[in-house]
Amino acid sequence: MISTRTLTAAALAIAIALPAVAHIEKTEPLQSLRQSYFALLGMTFGPMADMVKGDIEWDGATFERWASDLSGVTPYQVERGFAPGSEEGRTRAKPDIWLNIDDFNAKLADLRREAASLAEVAKAGDRAAIQAQFVATGKTCKACHDEYKAKDYLY
Amino acid sequence: MISTRTLTAAALAIAIALPAVAHIEKTEPLQSLRQSYFALLGMTFGPMADMVKGDIEWDGATFERWASDLSGVTPYQVERGFAPGSEEGRTRAKPDIWLNIDDFNAKLADLRREAASLAEVAKAGDRAAIQAQFVATGKTCKACHDEYKAKDYLY
Repeated sequence: MISTRTLTAAALAIAIALPAVAHIEKTEPLQSLRQSYFALLGMTFGPMADMVKGDIEWDGATFERWASDLSGVTPYQVERGFAPGSEEGRTRAKPDIWLNIDDFNAKLADLRREAASLAEVAKAGDRAAIQAQFVATGKTCKACHDEYKAKDYLY
Repeated sequence: MISTRTLTAAALAIAIALPAVAHIEKTEPLQSLRQSYFALLGMTFGPMADMVKGDIEWDGATFERWASDLSGVTPYQVERGFAPGSEEGRTRAKPDIWLNIDDFNAKLADLRREAASLAEVAKAGDRAAIQAQFVATGKTCKACHDEYKAKDYLY
């Protein structure tokens, strides 16, 4: 059972953790696809981080639910959003993605693998193991952001 | 194997099927969460509809992948995006949602059940059964949109 207090804290955590999402035009469906994908991940990952850091109270059932949400979304074929030509538009995706698409895809595979593992570990319920696997998952986010995500919009 | 032709057709189908997504501010994270959720669903559902209608060539493996994407995202806890207070902001969500939240949640459960079934049926590979289950899934989208989604932004 998720308490109202936890949900309120989580909502606040989301509000703080969420990056600004672009104004998305009908003419930019591929940018929209990938921004929606990463927005859903971020809006779950943010509160998980707050729980791991102790900024909100630990609640294993809530964390398990978030881990399940994360591992449900990661397999979604976000690659469709990085089709040739989609480096234009309102985006923080660096052009290096398309120059190193194999590396980019390998990093995406890392994220999916670690997120799937996190959902499994969360089910098992060992808090120390969960936190360690959360950090491992976060590293796969960071590895890609460091190389391929600009701090500001490029276009 | 997905052909380049199919992917190009699918990208076009997405471009046509995609509704405009709101300008999302940092101050509207809950609206952002739910819009991202439905955008991901729509961007998969659109090309599936085009394939069922014959506007793009039938490709069972591609359809199966899309059905898997759909059923992976639907369980995501989008309810968090409909928390009290989130009826404000740039949204097409009608206030009736919050007045009839049990009915709204029941319709969401219908979507999840039919989408999960669609992924199973798609794996089995019987095209007529797939198309019938696709229509059943689409009805759960429509049932909710008819009552709870405005054509234009409300605020």
